Amino acid sequence: MAAELPTLDPESFRAQAHQLVDWMADYLARVGEYPVQPPVTPGEIRARLPAAPPARPEQFDRIVADFRQLIVPGLTHWGHPGFFGYFPANTSPPSILAEMLTATIGAQCMSWNTSPAATELEQVMMEWLRQMLGLPDSFTGVIQDTASTATLVALITARDAAVARAGGREGGTLDRLTVYTSSEANSSVPKGARLAGFRPDHIRLLDTDATAAMSLPALEQAIAADRAAGLLPACVVATVGTTGSTAIDPVPGIAAVCRREALWLHVDAAFAGSAAILPELRWILDGAEQADSLVFNPHKWLLVNFDCSAYFVRDRAALLRSFAASAEILKAGYDDAVINYRDWGIQLGRRFRALKLWFVIRSYGVEGLQAMLREHIRLGKLFASWVARHDGFELIGDAPLATVCFRQGGSADLDALNQRLLARLNADGKTFLTGTRLRGRYVLRLALGHLTTSEADVRRAWQLIVAAAGEGEG
Amino acid sequence: MAAELPTLDPESFRAQAHQLVDWMADYLARVGEYPVQPPVTPGEIRARLPAAPPARPEQFDRIVADFRQLIVPGLTHWGHPGFFGYFPANTSPPSILAEMLTATIGAQCMSWNTSPAATELEQVMMEWLRQMLGLPDSFTGVIQDTASTATLVALITARDAAVARAGGREGGTLDRLTVYTSSEANSSVPKGARLAGFRPDHIRLLDTDATAAMSLPALEQAIAADRAAGLLPACVVATVGTTGSTAIDPVPGIAAVCRREALWLHVDAAFAGSAAILPELRWILDGAEQADSLVFNPHKWLLVNFDCSAYFVRDRAALLRSFAASAEILKAGYDDAVINYRDWGIQLGRRFRALKLWFVIRSYGVEGLQAMLREHIRLGKLFASWVARHDGFELIGDAPLATVCFRQGGSADLDALNQRLLARLNADGKTFLTGTRLRGRYVLRLALGHLTTSEADVRRAWQLIVAAAGEGEG
Repeated sequence: MAAELPTLDPESFRAQAHQLVDWMADYLARVGEYPVQPPVTPGEIRARLPAAPPARPEQFDRIVADFRQLIVPGLTHWGHPGFFGYFPANTSPPSILAEMLTATIGAQCMSWNTSPAATELEQVMMEWLRQMLGLPDSFTGVIQDTASTATLVALITARDAAVARAGGREGGTLDRLTVYTSSEANSSVPKGARLAGFRPDHIRLLDTDATAAMSLPALEQAIAADRAAGLLPACVVATVGTTGSTAIDPVPGIAAVCRREALWLHVDAAFAGSAAILPELRWILDGAEQADSLVFNPHKWLLVNFDCSAYFVRDRAALLRSFAASAEILKAGYDDAVINYRDWGIQLGRRFRALKLWFVIRSYGVEGLQAMLREHIRLGKLFASWVARHDGFELIGDAPLATVCFRQGGSADLDALNQRLLARLNADGKTFLTGTRLRGRYVLRLALGHLTTSEADVRRAWQLIVAAAGEGEG
Repeated sequence: MAAELPTLDPESFRAQAHQLVDWMADYLARVGEYPVQPPVTPGEIRARLPAAPPARPEQFDRIVADFRQLIVPGLTHWGHPGFFGYFPANTSPPSILAEMLTATIGAQCMSWNTSPAATELEQVMMEWLRQMLGLPDSFTGVIQDTASTATLVALITARDAAVARAGGREGGTLDRLTVYTSSEANSSVPKGARLAGFRPDHIRLLDTDATAAMSLPALEQAIAADRAAGLLPACVVATVGTTGSTAIDPVPGIAAVCRREALWLHVDAAFAGSAAILPELRWILDGAEQADSLVFNPHKWLLVNFDCSAYFVRDRAALLRSFAASAEILKAGYDDAVINYRDWGIQLGRRFRALKLWFVIRSYGVEGLQAMLREHIRLGKLFASWVARHDGFELIGDAPLATVCFRQGGSADLDALNQRLLARLNADGKTFLTGTRLRGRYVLRLALGHLTTSEADVRRAWQLIVAAAGEGEG
């Protein structure tokens, strides 16, 4: 069959790949020329694609032409210098280069023997990241795909540990377990607790303090009330760097409560964790050394392509008790001497994600990554200073971690005013921000963190925001 | 910072990427020159890697040199023409090319608006795959990372549906739910049921018949016994193409039981589902039209890079009830008019996986993919005929789907004999098979399905097997 079809042989691949590389380099250089968000309506792109698959092979050049004409104009460009939405999902040249190799090799990293170098590189990369974050050497790590998955893994492990401590499932143990997180936690935390089988009405979304961080008194009161009601507090998920405003829960105090109450502590540092590689910001992980598990995403603020979440645990035996999967076909003689990462998470099959971490950390060095983070934080403070000095705007919080929350002020309905401002701002394709609700108020959010973001990009965004606010008043 | 560091600018990237493309094309052409499995011992590669991350940036050429000298020789080469282990994890030129673009764009596919073209291409690709498999148009699909994840998603949805049907969690509903699958189901099925919170002692691994398929009488008896004991049967996971021997559970009969008993039916067709694109093999999915959910892996036998699992559901409202995640930052005005795939699975963040499906299906056409599958099945039957004709070997089953189970015969302890045969065979790096236990007997397993596998490769593997068996007798 091989002779009948195009694009099968390595030499055709070579030619096609060289052509694509030129497009890729051009894209990286010129992504700012696209609208950040495409001016498309729901269903428009779908309507332009064939409703049925082709019976016969098509020429690769034609496929690439369609990619350029149908797909690229319909993308939201996350690497656009005007993209300040959500949190960054980075790419970087060394990471993209590693992904090219990963795809070519196609290694399956479920077990040591299915790719020994991939498993051992993952061990070493998790150790490098542990050192970079200043976590204790009692922590061991594994790469998960996303923080959603890692948090679900933590919640399942916590659930099983609590059930075991209570003597098993008899007597409705699982129905009595409770979980605590703040109302500012990422949506993946309450969702993960539901998926793990905690009763939806036993998931406590605690009040936050004035900084949008979890209220420690609220946590202690909730635990006490639940114990008084005969329930079994099982797990606290603390957030270091909330999605809304990068608020930092009081982890040292939370950790003390968890120790006293024998609760599992999971720290969700998905975005902000990367900042702990800066000595001056390592305090954001204070208390995390007492956590049972922690996740942060090198794919957010550490230049590694999505997906790559670093998940650390203190007691790997607890993780393995919940996640180990044995099957004859997976067994090997040296299983006791190696790590089989299939036993460390949900998925049996696993991509070779350690390679991009290796390429990125070596290409930039820890000092290079630190310099980038410091620059983003400087730009965030600069932007915040512009907002604070402008009479028409209100700065919300102090933007410690390169995400700035703010809103247009005035006497009207400020929520509606700012929703209209955001819609107007994003509509012209020059910049893109997201809005969120913070302690009841609708705010705009400028999230920095992409490799290529410059002061000029941030200044331009500010000018666009001020202009769009002026239009709204006219 | 940009000016200080290497590998940052698009022109350096262009040069480096062109160099890597040549390595990649060479790798695809010459992968057969490596040992399939590397002659490394546990810890050997790790010991050669620095224990701490570099402070300063390193030159990219040096990183690539280390990749070639330290990593590549330590990989198991899944694309090696002598690799016949597990199930294939494919790559193909158009898929690798798509992965290059995916990595460059770095699109986040959690919501329609975070990448409209990616969401709509995913809708269209799932529709193409649905048509290719001959599933009813009442099914809608979503790309999950792996079958492990998709099966966990199915089990959680089934759990929530059963709890709702029972009137909620009061009275220990969850502790009364039961799940049924066969003892030949993939390890991810009982593992997924545990993760979803089903009681471990309520997960029934049913007996199989002589073909290693689920015994329908065993299923009916188990359900009746559980109902008599006051339990609540919730879900059956049927396998089309077991990992051990590609056995096919009697899905039409299982579906009838599930309808009668109001149980969720999930069909795990991870490997074999691809074969349903052949009209002459579409029968393997008979009954699946009545399933509530089904998963198959284009990354196994349809030339798409791992990870890419196609997950279909009949009632998308049930899926959304369990998996929808709302958060202010994720909301958009047109949410009712679009699909937000973040609500269709565990992960909030999602890679742009539809692109590689599009590239592969168009590059080969449905007829090209069918031709490849037919060739693999022909080679499987050819290999099986060699085994059957050889006095020293015993063929196990009839190898309908390009996976052949067999073992060396004789009068000794046949399990030990075949374990030694496998160890000897895999040790020299020319070929790689896996062993498994099938209905109590240890057997060897030759799994076909890689793009480049030729008759000569299969013949060579057979010669090596015969020679290794002869050595064992000597």
